Amino acid sequence: MAKDLIILAYSGGLDTSCILKWLIQKNYDVVCYIADIGQNEDFDKAKQKAELIGAKDVIVEDLRKEFVINYMLPGIQMGLVYESRYYLGTSLARPCISVGIVNAAKRLGAKYISHGATGKGNDQVRFELSVYSLWPDGKVIAPWRLPEFFNRFQGRSDLIEFAKRHNIPVSATPKAPWSTDENIMHISYESGVLEDPGVITPNGIYKMTRDLPETDNYPCTLDISFEKGLPISIKIPSDQEKALVISDPLAMVQTLNKIGGQHGIGRIDIVENRFLGLKSRGLYETPAGTILHVTHLDLEAYALDKEVLRLKKYLQDKMADFVYNGFWFSPEAIYTRKCLELSQESVTGTVTVQIFKGNVTVLARSSNTSLYNKDLVSMDIAGGFSPEDSTGFININAVRLKEYARFSAVTKF
Amino acid sequence: MAKDLIILAYSGGLDTSCILKWLIQKNYDVVCYIADIGQNEDFDKAKQKAELIGAKDVIVEDLRKEFVINYMLPGIQMGLVYESRYYLGTSLARPCISVGIVNAAKRLGAKYISHGATGKGNDQVRFELSVYSLWPDGKVIAPWRLPEFFNRFQGRSDLIEFAKRHNIPVSATPKAPWSTDENIMHISYESGVLEDPGVITPNGIYKMTRDLPETDNYPCTLDISFEKGLPISIKIPSDQEKALVISDPLAMVQTLNKIGGQHGIGRIDIVENRFLGLKSRGLYETPAGTILHVTHLDLEAYALDKEVLRLKKYLQDKMADFVYNGFWFSPEAIYTRKCLELSQESVTGTVTVQIFKGNVTVLARSSNTSLYNKDLVSMDIAGGFSPEDSTGFININAVRLKEYARFSAVTKF
Amino acid sequence: MAKDLIILAYSGGLDTSCILKWLIQKNYDVVCYIADIGQNEDFDKAKQKAELIGAKDVIVEDLRKEFVINYMLPGIQMGLVYESRYYLGTSLARPCISVGIVNAAKRLGAKYISHGATGKGNDQVRFELSVYSLWPDGKVIAPWRLPEFFNRFQGRSDLIEFAKRHNIPVSATPKAPWSTDENIMHISYESGVLEDPGVITPNGIYKMTRDLPETDNYPCTLDISFEKGLPISIKIPSDQEKALVISDPLAMVQTLNKIGGQHGIGRIDIVENRFLGLKSRGLYETPAGTILHVTHLDLEAYALDKEVLRLKKYLQDKMADFVYNGFWFSPEAIYTRKCLELSQESVTGTVTVQIFKGNVTVLARSSNTSLYNKDLVSMDIAGGFSPEDSTGFININAVRLKEYARFSAVTKF
Amino acid sequence: MAKDLIILAYSGGLDTSCILKWLIQKNYDVVCYIADIGQNEDFDKAKQKAELIGAKDVIVEDLRKEFVINYMLPGIQMGLVYESRYYLGTSLARPCISVGIVNAAKRLGAKYISHGATGKGNDQVRFELSVYSLWPDGKVIAPWRLPEFFNRFQGRSDLIEFAKRHNIPVSATPKAPWSTDENIMHISYESGVLEDPGVITPNGIYKMTRDLPETDNYPCTLDISFEKGLPISIKIPSDQEKALVISDPLAMVQTLNKIGGQHGIGRIDIVENRFLGLKSRGLYETPAGTILHVTHLDLEAYALDKEVLRLKKYLQDKMADFVYNGFWFSPEAIYTRKCLELSQESVTGTVTVQIFKGNVTVLARSSNTSLYNKDLVSMDIAGGFSPEDSTGFININAVRLKEYARFSAVTKF
Repeated sequence: MAKDLIILAYSGGLDTSCILKWLIQKNYDVVCYIADIGQNEDFDKAKQKAELIGAKDVIVEDLRKEFVINYMLPGIQMGLVYESRYYLGTSLARPCISVGIVNAAKRLGAKYISHGATGKGNDQVRFELSVYSLWPDGKVIAPWRLPEFFNRFQGRSDLIEFAKRHNIPVSATPKAPWSTDENIMHISYESGVLEDPGVITPNGIYKMTRDLPETDNYPCTLDISFEKGLPISIKIPSDQEKALVISDPLAMVQTLNKIGGQHGIGRIDIVENRFLGLKSRGLYETPAGTILHVTHLDLEAYALDKEVLRLKKYLQDKMADFVYNGFWFSPEAIYTRKCLELSQESVTGTVTVQIFKGNVTVLARSSNTSLYNKDLVSMDIAGGFSPEDSTGFININAVRLKEYARFSAVTKF
Repeated sequence: MAKDLIILAYSGGLDTSCILKWLIQKNYDVVCYIADIGQNEDFDKAKQKAELIGAKDVIVEDLRKEFVINYMLPGIQMGLVYESRYYLGTSLARPCISVGIVNAAKRLGAKYISHGATGKGNDQVRFELSVYSLWPDGKVIAPWRLPEFFNRFQGRSDLIEFAKRHNIPVSATPKAPWSTDENIMHISYESGVLEDPGVITPNGIYKMTRDLPETDNYPCTLDISFEKGLPISIKIPSDQEKALVISDPLAMVQTLNKIGGQHGIGRIDIVENRFLGLKSRGLYETPAGTILHVTHLDLEAYALDKEVLRLKKYLQDKMADFVYNGFWFSPEAIYTRKCLELSQESVTGTVTVQIFKGNVTVLARSSNTSLYNKDLVSMDIAGGFSPEDSTGFININAVRLKEYARFSAVTKF
Repeated sequence: MAKDLIILAYSGGLDTSCILKWLIQKNYDVVCYIADIGQNEDFDKAKQKAELIGAKDVIVEDLRKEFVINYMLPGIQMGLVYESRYYLGTSLARPCISVGIVNAAKRLGAKYISHGATGKGNDQVRFELSVYSLWPDGKVIAPWRLPEFFNRFQGRSDLIEFAKRHNIPVSATPKAPWSTDENIMHISYESGVLEDPGVITPNGIYKMTRDLPETDNYPCTLDISFEKGLPISIKIPSDQEKALVISDPLAMVQTLNKIGGQHGIGRIDIVENRFLGLKSRGLYETPAGTILHVTHLDLEAYALDKEVLRLKKYLQDKMADFVYNGFWFSPEAIYTRKCLELSQESVTGTVTVQIFKGNVTVLARSSNTSLYNKDLVSMDIAGGFSPEDSTGFININAVRLKEYARFSAVTKF
Repeated sequence: MAKDLIILAYSGGLDTSCILKWLIQKNYDVVCYIADIGQNEDFDKAKQKAELIGAKDVIVEDLRKEFVINYMLPGIQMGLVYESRYYLGTSLARPCISVGIVNAAKRLGAKYISHGATGKGNDQVRFELSVYSLWPDGKVIAPWRLPEFFNRFQGRSDLIEFAKRHNIPVSATPKAPWSTDENIMHISYESGVLEDPGVITPNGIYKMTRDLPETDNYPCTLDISFEKGLPISIKIPSDQEKALVISDPLAMVQTLNKIGGQHGIGRIDIVENRFLGLKSRGLYETPAGTILHVTHLDLEAYALDKEVLRLKKYLQDKMADFVYNGFWFSPEAIYTRKCLELSQESVTGTVTVQIFKGNVTVLARSSNTSLYNKDLVSMDIAGGFSPEDSTGFININAVRLKEYARFSAVTKF
């Protein structure tokens, strides 16, 4: 009888390598799926390793453009910030990878999808909710939540022993005392020595960005252009005649990562609330993402009507939660995304920004679709404004306050 | 017949000096009221000037402690940020000054209050709504909104001519080509050459903070402690034996301003939406306020329950609008403030922060009232957590998504 | 020299008749504009009266279809209810009339628009904000806010005297001791003897609906169908062979008004908050509107995803305020309306409803686009649901609660 | 060895009787806990039945006062309505019962709590989240979610067979083809023949309220008084000299239930969204609750400031979800409840209401703490209001709209 086929989200690391072997032992055919979303990884080596362990096949798929265009940049456009600080670099990647692996599963006629995410984390949720949305009849096997598996592998040493026994190569370099998730948008660090929020993090942890003392001593000034809220190009002045203009989304992000990295942009060290109700401490570095968010926020405030801005802000905070919690493909996220895109119709223009010593400083902004009216606001020009009107405006606003004051003797405040 | 008494909010500048004279010409008795809220000003000189012009009396009142304790620090506690960026330094000062001037008006039996705020700005609204709340039967005279006044004084040159004619001293140093509002929390800059949001602001504009290239080359690390969300002390390590601990609110803010200033902390250049419906560009520097906001936000996320945090966030955004728009003494602001204070019951603890090159970097935080549970979140300890439960949690969350996917063939997304 | 042309929103009543005369005396050419939005009015008589007084021309425009299709029914679709009770019958009519009068003003080259709305009410705001949105360069003359006018006409007797002196016909029937606004959607009653919220309203006030003791003794059961949230047809069973189906929007509303009227549907007596900050008491009767709102709400809850419903609810409450306050043509209302329409994509189906003795009772509902899944929810069928999953779901939701309970000893509650 | 002690939430019905027996067979000591929250039940008979089956002890606790005072009336005060229609009669009862059973469990030194709620419903969640909040170390056994149990008892016939085999009395009267939850606040009906939302419900289903044709032919008019949002007394005029005044909370609710029942008040037939993501159809009758909600809403709108009302509304919608989902003892619900109570400080006064033919009609309201100002709103009295101010108010509000209109040529709308 033919074996059931499983697609395993494979990273090449110890956990998923052991899971691969374990699934084969369970009598499954296993195809490994490796998504390239910009992490610094030797994909050939990972592929060989999986084949060595016994994978029926190994798929390596370059999803970098897909990730940048359909997840990261819309995340900027929508202004997604989780709990006021986190730009959702991991949360945005999960649905992207899920599309890749579900497509593979359907193509190959697989019955199951498996992954190495653990039982306390967000990623299992994001991954599985995306899979179930994309493939309602699909089934997910999460070994780290199966007693049979997690009772057998109670610590890293159990995994190493299992690996050695089954000729699975184990990296000679000792594992960092924290865990990491990396893609073209960001790297996150958590667990291990980082679990105590009162302990200052060790030096040398960050990889995309330089420490402030090591950053460049000359600021970088550049122009970032947006169309309907989406970053469309960056322009970097150069000593030569012509400025460098980059409009390929992937190259744009890579360039901003490089500049941001040189200037130490986009690090945060926070305690956040996981969807499961646990609090965890995470460190993130998001160089390009930070530059794009800061500039987008500036252009948006410049272009949008005041009240539309407030409605958009409400929806954006909701959407950040949806995305963090893994609901990218939910009805509410699909709906909210449409509404947020609608809000960005006039967020078109250019922001001039200086990148220096960890700071993203907006210097100027321009837009043909901004509601800003220089004459109207000018102290030197009437601009069609009648100052007497302000008296009526204030007096009418005071009607309610006076009533309340008389009523409650608020004057004692 | 006795003349009617007016209390004039007096700054010593050209506008309010001319208004003072104009009111006297209108046959009022005028008492000048100068609030010291930490602005860099020669109060004696201003007093003499007012007396010279003909003020019946001049009151100089030191409201710095009042401002810090009852407005600035509660603003931190409530997390007030207008349109995601502005810490409301001016908006918080207006109700404080209004209390001072209304109390003076009542004490002296005045019939009117007058001020030099212009007709397009926010401050007239904040000032008058506060006055009317505190003194519903009071009356405000705003010369810049009276045709008789604004038609006569159509530009700065008209004021200067009037001043010269009436022996009002005019400062020899030319006025900066922008206007400024200053207090212990911040300095704002707007108008004049800043009115074009596309023009990069000139060098040398900022006064509280150094430019990044001029900042100290060694970071300053300090501990900031909060009780129920209010900053209560800062602790600065020193080379000597004992760290410096400051818990006097005013001294705390002054010290943080000094440190923040040396490290270039807290500058923003934004376009904001005024209450009157105009967009304006403003520059702000808020050194101590920025350090306190960043650390408070960190401690709050660490201490508070996830869902309480979201409710608080909603109320905080509302409150920021109320304060910006001048509704500090409104029923909705009084109510919201109580709710926000309730949310801070457990926001008690200490944040360790590094101040360096324009960056406020949280390094660590501790709290006895945080809901953070290291064992619960640990990757190495079960901590009472059953991974199997996550499967049920995910599956139930997927019920709705699968229905929707089946229904709408969302898989095409 | 040619006189300036004013378009006056004319009702035929005493106020606007005197205003018409007064404007003519002020040396304007006045064209009267009468919108037929379904009020019970003799338009020919009103026209003749205006001509008699001296109107240069009188335009009577039938806006009933326009009002029903573009304002009333979208108000149902969006679920607009002000302060939980008022269906906005007047608020929705103002922008509709404004379009009519502004188009007339532009067509005729008028310089001004005038109206008889008073200074404390909402309608002046709704009317003028709509006019200024549609015609930013237009000017509005509101006599009831001009001291010259309101000082001269301090009460109804002044108007009557003026009318008599200028041969303006004054109705012989005494004015009702309250004021009324009527259109095809509703009639409102306020002011006069209704101003005291503690006084029970007199009998015989309502005109569209019967008092409960006078209502029909047999219920009326009918089907109402919606497409994307918009009512598209009603089906009334009859004794004859075929049920009566009405899909013309105007006829549909008229029929529901008739049925609702016979059964005493849709009266409310409330105190509401006006935009100007005053509280006022209003009585409303909205027969068709009430039937449509109740049935739409039912279908929407049946069809929509749970979380989309909550987002829509938030936006709907915002939109109700926008519309009440006169901001129909504002950027925020235009934006919110688009979002609300997006939310209704799947609100298609039919609701069976019984109309009887003041009650609109939903009996059943059906929809091909509802997310309701009978098998899934059935107590008798598993329907793909695993009860064990609920355990995990509950346990994970309890993680946060247990932490909080341990932390705060919530058990004392 | 001593057996482990379980407290079983016992109803006397077939399900919990079988569960009782099954738990005894599983070698537990079982104490049955019956909460009297106003359901129509023979508690003595239920007690005898449990003893007969083998319960170690049976506790019958009268929680009616507790339920009315600490859950139902605060639910009115907070204005809790789920998805715009459901007054949460069942949701409010669960935490109340949970307090009772947890107290019993702690008192008796029990290790487990068990219940008969099923795996698809809300009540398991409400019950268990409450238990875990009150008793974080407690454990819950939910047989209907254990495969061992639900595989054995796949339908009602399996339960009946088991009951017969073990001499458990089975009611001779056939079970209604739907399930019911009853307490002093309401009765709910769901499942069975009600599962198809397109089927009109059979006659004779409701028990607390009469069908409209059977209701009294004379209206009942009464006064309901509130203090800080809580109902404190009702006054019913009588033919005799003195009106009947009831201020005991339990008697007040019982009386209103009786009046409401005679007049057919408070029935709804809705499709709602369960916390687990399923949609279900439910019928509810809530006579007293409906009368109290309608009158509270009226008084609240009369008394509260406009903007406070909006903040309260937001929090109230959140709280309704918290309560429906079982989070009564959560940090967010405890916090929100405090905020909502704060909002009610001035909601004190009396509403006169007519109860007739299914309608709760507010006739008048009075309050010493209302912000309503009759002079201010009067059309006949200036009341300190300057109509000219409205011009400025409108013009300033139009500034933003005109900008937008010029910008977007909104005139095409």
